[in-house]
Amino acid sequence: MMDFLEEPIPGVGTYDDFNTIDWVREKSRDRDRHREITNKSKESTWALIHSVSDAFSGWLLMLLIGLLSGSLAGLIDISAHWMTDLKEGICTRGLWFNHEHCCWNSEHVTFEDKDKCPEWNSWSQLLINTDEGAFAYIVNYFMYVLWALLFAFLAVSLVRVFAPYACGSGIPEIKTILSGFIIRGYLGKWTLIIKTITLVLAVSSGLSLGKEGPLVHVACCCGNILCHCFNKYRKNEAKRREVLSAAAAAGVSVAFGAPIGGVLFSLEEVSYYFPLKTLWRSFFAALVAAFTLRSINPFGNSRLVLFYVEFHTPWHLFELVPFILLGIFGGLWGALFIRTNIAWCRKRKTTQLGKYPVIEVLIVTAITAILAFPNEYTRMSTSELISELFNDCGLLDSSKLCDYENRFNTSKGDELPDRPAGAGVYSAMWQLALTLVMKIVITIFTFGMKIPSGLFIPSMAVGAIAGRLLGVGMEQLAYYHHDWAIFNSWCSQGADCITPGLYAMVGAAACLGGVTRMTVSLVVIMFELTGGLEYIVPLMAAAMTSKWVADALGREGIYDAHIRLNGYPFLEAKEEFAHKTLAMDVMKPRRNDPLLTVLTQDSMTVEDVETVISETTYSGFPVVVSRESQRLVGFVLRRDLIISIENARKKQDGVVSTSIIYFTEHSPPMPPYTPPTLKLRNILDLSPFTVTDLTPMEIVVDIFRKLGLRQCLVTHNGRLLGIITKKDVLKHIAQMANQDPDSILFN
Amino acid sequence: MMDFLEEPIPGVGTYDDFNTIDWVREKSRDRDRHREITNKSKESTWALIHSVSDAFSGWLLMLLIGLLSGSLAGLIDISAHWMTDLKEGICTRGLWFNHEHCCWNSEHVTFEDKDKCPEWNSWSQLLINTDEGAFAYIVNYFMYVLWALLFAFLAVSLVRVFAPYACGSGIPEIKTILSGFIIRGYLGKWTLIIKTITLVLAVSSGLSLGKEGPLVHVACCCGNILCHCFNKYRKNEAKRREVLSAAAAAGVSVAFGAPIGGVLFSLEEVSYYFPLKTLWRSFFAALVAAFTLRSINPFGNSRLVLFYVEFHTPWHLFELVPFILLGIFGGLWGALFIRTNIAWCRKRKTTQLGKYPVIEVLIVTAITAILAFPNEYTRMSTSELISELFNDCGLLDSSKLCDYENRFNTSKGDELPDRPAGAGVYSAMWQLALTLVMKIVITIFTFGMKIPSGLFIPSMAVGAIAGRLLGVGMEQLAYYHHDWAIFNSWCSQGADCITPGLYAMVGAAACLGGVTRMTVSLVVIMFELTGGLEYIVPLMAAAMTSKWVADALGREGIYDAHIRLNGYPFLEAKEEFAHKTLAMDVMKPRRNDPLLTVLTQDSMTVEDVETVISETTYSGFPVVVSRESQRLVGFVLRRDLIISIENARKKQDGVVSTSIIYFTEHSPPMPPYTPPTLKLRNILDLSPFTVTDLTPMEIVVDIFRKLGLRQCLVTHNGRLLGIITKKDVLKHIAQMANQDPDSILFN
Repeated sequence: MMDFLEEPIPGVGTYDDFNTIDWVREKSRDRDRHREITNKSKESTWALIHSVSDAFSGWLLMLLIGLLSGSLAGLIDISAHWMTDLKEGICTRGLWFNHEHCCWNSEHVTFEDKDKCPEWNSWSQLLINTDEGAFAYIVNYFMYVLWALLFAFLAVSLVRVFAPYACGSGIPEIKTILSGFIIRGYLGKWTLIIKTITLVLAVSSGLSLGKEGPLVHVACCCGNILCHCFNKYRKNEAKRREVLSAAAAAGVSVAFGAPIGGVLFSLEEVSYYFPLKTLWRSFFAALVAAFTLRSINPFGNSRLVLFYVEFHTPWHLFELVPFILLGIFGGLWGALFIRTNIAWCRKRKTTQLGKYPVIEVLIVTAITAILAFPNEYTRMSTSELISELFNDCGLLDSSKLCDYENRFNTSKGDELPDRPAGAGVYSAMWQLALTLVMKIVITIFTFGMKIPSGLFIPSMAVGAIAGRLLGVGMEQLAYYHHDWAIFNSWCSQGADCITPGLYAMVGAAACLGGVTRMTVSLVVIMFELTGGLEYIVPLMAAAMTSKWVADALGREGIYDAHIRLNGYPFLEAKEEFAHKTLAMDVMKPRRNDPLLTVLTQDSMTVEDVETVISETTYSGFPVVVSRESQRLVGFVLRRDLIISIENARKKQDGVVSTSIIYFTEHSPPMPPYTPPTLKLRNILDLSPFTVTDLTPMEIVVDIFRKLGLRQCLVTHNGRLLGIITKKDVLKHIAQMANQDPDSILFN
Repeated sequence: MMDFLEEPIPGVGTYDDFNTIDWVREKSRDRDRHREITNKSKESTWALIHSVSDAFSGWLLMLLIGLLSGSLAGLIDISAHWMTDLKEGICTRGLWFNHEHCCWNSEHVTFEDKDKCPEWNSWSQLLINTDEGAFAYIVNYFMYVLWALLFAFLAVSLVRVFAPYACGSGIPEIKTILSGFIIRGYLGKWTLIIKTITLVLAVSSGLSLGKEGPLVHVACCCGNILCHCFNKYRKNEAKRREVLSAAAAAGVSVAFGAPIGGVLFSLEEVSYYFPLKTLWRSFFAALVAAFTLRSINPFGNSRLVLFYVEFHTPWHLFELVPFILLGIFGGLWGALFIRTNIAWCRKRKTTQLGKYPVIEVLIVTAITAILAFPNEYTRMSTSELISELFNDCGLLDSSKLCDYENRFNTSKGDELPDRPAGAGVYSAMWQLALTLVMKIVITIFTFGMKIPSGLFIPSMAVGAIAGRLLGVGMEQLAYYHHDWAIFNSWCSQGADCITPGLYAMVGAAACLGGVTRMTVSLVVIMFELTGGLEYIVPLMAAAMTSKWVADALGREGIYDAHIRLNGYPFLEAKEEFAHKTLAMDVMKPRRNDPLLTVLTQDSMTVEDVETVISETTYSGFPVVVSRESQRLVGFVLRRDLIISIENARKKQDGVVSTSIIYFTEHSPPMPPYTPPTLKLRNILDLSPFTVTDLTPMEIVVDIFRKLGLRQCLVTHNGRLLGIITKKDVLKHIAQMANQDPDSILFN
């Protein structure tokens, strides 16, 4: 694209903040660099070593990303666990023990009540020396709310003061960045540090949010920062995005302990320009990250996965009916959540509300904590809740959810027959129903606040509760009515027919699918949690139904909705453009506008060009042979033009306002005694993309997507007619979808 | 691209055999069709139902493909199993029982010797009434070779007579077809029928080949045939290729029982233009196929996977050294195999050898059978061999490979300590070493013969043997030298340190990786076989090493090498074009050639155009405003032009040789009394792709790949200068890689 034989002027070829990169140019630059290294490698041993190390630097980078993001994830897990327990009490054996570790080696622990040991002191025990009675309850309640508020306050303040980009889940922005947008500092070291700290605080505060989405952001920050150690990646925006895409895979990999699911997530959701090339490296990074996390062993069970489940009963074909019902529920929840959450976020953006983020966070935290404490299912951390809901009741399980009447004691091994529910199950059902309502409402207001907040865990919790409720209902139905036609073929009395934990899992997948619209990656993540192909069909049925239902109510997933809310220039790669418009309908100038601003190749003076620059705001100008012929020569970027002229005025002797600028190979013939000319062919893009004015927009959109263009010139019968920028394309798409085209804010 | 308001002439917009499709045009046509259906759907209920059924037809198609390919795979498995056993004997209880089923319910079977039962009669028992002695051995030997020759003869004859396309693995051709090439009949019903039958015959004949690759071809045939039931897919080459890509996933899914691996294989290896859009549907098809196969249950063990393995011992970090050694072996084998196999295939193509395919097959079969019978590891089917090699020796295993001296009987459960090898193991090692040599040599000559033959299983067998040999060696080393520094930290006496089965598995992955250069999909397929993330790291280390070693010795995988050997126009999507050439170096006409053949938009007569058509062989012509200006208007395809002119001469009154053909919107002004003009704007592509002459070829290659172009026009300062076709690009790439550019045969 450019002439690299001459020494480049510093600054030429870089981008401003909040601008879109030119993928083609970046890739070209990388290939030039690669060619140069390869050619040199034949000259000396040193150059050969340099060439080999350059080739392997990508793998080294992946290794480092995996190690760093795995370690950070372990650190976050451990600290969040400790601080969550801090809300309830402290360990007298050592302040640094969380509840579980505190009672781990205690001699006083009975099997029935693993969580009670004298070393662990609740706040009431510490402060008023008792754990009984209403007053102790109030003390504990008060301390719980107080800690929650303290954590939330710290989190929101740190974000506001040090790194405003650390809030939210980060996935919408990462999608946008990977599609070629530049947001300086979004993946910087401050964001990394503050996001790591505030994520722990936010999770510990008991708010209805998860750490899984933000972990992707954290991993991408690691990737971006580590890129600075390697020339190859530091200087090239396209190469850096390849690394970020792998880092996103590592993030999901540590979030769920699902490396393959992580790679597919990166492929399906966040990658944009290079889906396949980095597949193998992403996989490597994801695996390293997962194994680093496992060797840190934050869950204390040597398991790689967040929720390890093992079911003993196969599912029956008839059960697809409740699974599909769960899918419908998930789809409805997804669509409802996206609508209400976006409406609320829009309100926050446009009204006074947005000006008091600290107060907002404190209010939501206070409400969450006050409502959460009395109900054990809301008080426990959301990931613990999900674990418990996924769990298949064994013989020795002592939780309320497993309080069945053990009428038939004919169990063999782990297989338990369906039993009638006991009082504990019924009361758990009521509490879970309340939890469901609370989670649904509070999550809508939580996601989007100015603290790090992920959506995976709350969505999964909603689905898991709904699923467990339905599962227990089905189980009891099958127990009491095993003579019904729908049951009697496969569910005889005393058999173990229905696993409520599986329903919880299917529900979780359905709700997560409804909100994020993930498909394959979702099923694979869930598959990696169970480790058996057996349950893929239920998961798939629910995920498919959920996606269809949610899509019918609104095409966008939550991340795309947030991208649109923020006006980022993201060109969706999966949606087909369905309208029958032509390039001439979209290009600038419009029919009645003044003519397109062009430069001529060898007849404009420095002053002329400077006037054009100051009178317009376009980010680039086509260069033509002459204004009469309108025959296109190339395209020059505004930023490069400004830098080059400034540079020439400073350094090149005799360049004045009346100097002729020329973009041709050879200087045009000049009369004598004119000031020296200025050659700018080296900043001219000699292969601008062109389409004809009659090209259907669907093809133009495709070209923009696939080639990662910033702009494209429009010709008619060989004459230059206009220009289409990425922003024009996005505005046109918004317009055709009856949305406000001015919602696209950036270039 | 085209004007669809007028009734299209039949034939316009279709392709000739051995031509490349225009992806952009096909996609445009599909979108037009979709738009039409969506618009109509608002008019009547019937149209609405049509629109909905159209939207869901894709899913229905996937379901059918899954069911059909799963059933066919089951059928092939069962018949191949039966016919393989037929070489050794028959069941007197019923001819349709294979050896295993024959002895299944027999009362006379002892636990130690599951395979011996009176109902199963070897040929010597049937013919000379004894199974003992040298003569019986010779009879069995003779019958074994005879059956093998019969099966092979039948297979090669059927292929030759009915469906020449049924030979080989089919994957190179499927890759080419998915990239947009047309080979009529390659995925037709005859190919399907004959390939299914001959695949069973070929596998049963005992040749060193597998059924996994051809199963992908079979699944793609199913996909292609089922496409004919749906208008949406029958008429559109691009849509059909989306279906084929999903069918390929279903094929791998049934071949290995690995649905996720199948989807990734399709994504990594065969898909071309639409990697992500069809991911979810591919996954659905792969899953349906896998479950169909499982319900047919050909392996008789309710397992989904081909080789089910369960290991009990974790691996130690030090073991990465032998794993990497296996990776190096795999890479060397891959590179060696590709070179020698391609050299042999080239010899077959260019010399007399290729004219006697039947004799070739018979000779190779005879040699294979004669060498195979005396050695039990070559006599058994290759997949059985791999199963046995992967197997971790349990306490009750009676095979020779597990004949260890059971010195310490302190085993708990399934965990066995490392033990010294017994005589059986040593003799098995020798036999395996012989098997290894034989498989390596014979596979080179087998792959590429005129019978269906897959490469997965023989490659895996080579690797598994090497791995098992190394594994047993390591095991014995660790047993006898557990005081060595490398062992004493982790392998105390009497511990179970080393699992030879795992080494076999790692070796199989390494060899398969060396031959096919699969990466992620390979690891995921292997992961699905073991079902535990535990062993991903060894597999990945071996696969990575193997790919690096093999790539260092030759960039191409076996499929790409065969594509090049056959001269198919396949533009590799993963390799970057690394040379610094420009579009002007590649375009036609070359510097000293006559000018580019163009049509003018409104001044050529029918006769002029017919002269141009008959004097040239180009498949399309640019249309310009006038010869002087060389300003490009559009591009017209030769085939469309011929059909349209013929059609006009037949049906349109007054069109004669002197009629003016015009491509403009309005007819040019004509003097009175001239013959009626012929308007051909409807076949004119008004949005041809153009690049400038100074565009680097790396960008041009990228455009061809990503947009799926057939040709691209080259301009200089707005004037038409030349044309680059896909064939030109491929020839240029071959030339830059120092290969013969004339090896590219088709358009």
